[in-house]
Amino acid sequence: MASPTYNEESLKIYNELHSIAATLEGSTVFHFAGIGVDVEGKDGIGGLIEEWVGIWALQQGFNIKKATASQAFPDYFVGDNDALLEIKAFDYNASANFDIANFESYCSSLAHSPSRLNSDYLIFGYEIKGHKISIKDIWLKKIWEITCPSERWPLKTQTKRNVIYNIRPAAWYSTRSTYKTFNDPDAFVNALYETQEMYTGRSDRPLYLTNTGS
Amino acid sequence: MASPTYNEESLKIYNELHSIAATLEGSTVFHFAGIGVDVEGKDGIGGLIEEWVGIWALQQGFNIKKATASQAFPDYFVGDNDALLEIKAFDYNASANFDIANFESYCSSLAHSPSRLNSDYLIFGYEIKGHKISIKDIWLKKIWEITCPSERWPLKTQTKRNVIYNIRPAAWYSTRSTYKTFNDPDAFVNALYETQEMYTGRSDRPLYLTNTGS
Repeated sequence: MASPTYNEESLKIYNELHSIAATLEGSTVFHFAGIGVDVEGKDGIGGLIEEWVGIWALQQGFNIKKATASQAFPDYFVGDNDALLEIKAFDYNASANFDIANFESYCSSLAHSPSRLNSDYLIFGYEIKGHKISIKDIWLKKIWEITCPSERWPLKTQTKRNVIYNIRPAAWYSTRSTYKTFNDPDAFVNALYETQEMYTGRSDRPLYLTNTGS
Repeated sequence: MASPTYNEESLKIYNELHSIAATLEGSTVFHFAGIGVDVEGKDGIGGLIEEWVGIWALQQGFNIKKATASQAFPDYFVGDNDALLEIKAFDYNASANFDIANFESYCSSLAHSPSRLNSDYLIFGYEIKGHKISIKDIWLKKIWEITCPSERWPLKTQTKRNVIYNIRPAAWYSTRSTYKTFNDPDAFVNALYETQEMYTGRSDRPLYLTNTGS
């Protein structure tokens, strides 16, 4: 099992952020008629951190471009080759529960955009104390490093009333998790399309993603 | 039909706010690691304006106390007699759609806290342009001045799948609305308990709220 190859620019951004992680903190304030009201709760924090990364990385001179709002993915293009970078965030004191991607969209998009399988995921574990948010850890990952099987499906998903909504993350940061992350991209792709076949009775798996594995 | 009697302190707060309404503007900013990210959307604005009113009014020397978080109502106590003051806000370019109160809680609470019928409602009509929020109008109202019948019920409510959730406002600010607001507290109370009877087959109306009106 080879170590994943992250995009060079993603890796530079991650390394710099990781080195200053202890200084990353802030809060949300409603500024109104000369008064500042601290905003409570963690609603929307993932989106705000995603916005923040783009502004910060540009200020630092990294090669990063925001994707247009009409695109389902990625959040950013980085480097000369416009590599795909996704930003995720979760409450470090809870379990990672962000949506990696819509399940059906991801299944069909791999056929049209195979490069999506190679997206980098820059993931922030934040902590909220009172009104202050701080960063406890940062990871750079590939999708097969943050996904796993579940009891019900070959790929862990958010399933409500038998309807699959989103691909949901493994506890990749924990040594105690029952389900381990996948070993390589093939294992993830197999689990993805096996789940789709179990769920819909069909598979959108394109020929070039067919392999000889299980 | 006599003009409603608002609490003296509520009225002072309203008059001062109304006179400076044109200056009331601001935005929500996520301050993180030296960068400010403007927060989009109107999620939570009602709660932030409610918080802001309390801080502003205290700064101005008004007699106002925040109610404890465990209380369902009111938002504030004002004046020497702890009169009830509720803060509401809505997008001035849409229809008023805030929750006045949970329907069943309101029905039963009138029995225990008849003074709730006399609460003052301080209502802000805001506008969002880009990231900026500004105040277009402010009203001070009693509940019967901002409620009305609907096609389905004697009292307009938020009803989903035949379940009544909240008491919802009339378009009291419009001259073109089909359903007019109630003329007096009795008309509102009648509509409230008639709706409860139609809905549950029983009425929590306490004896002292029984009147000879329709």
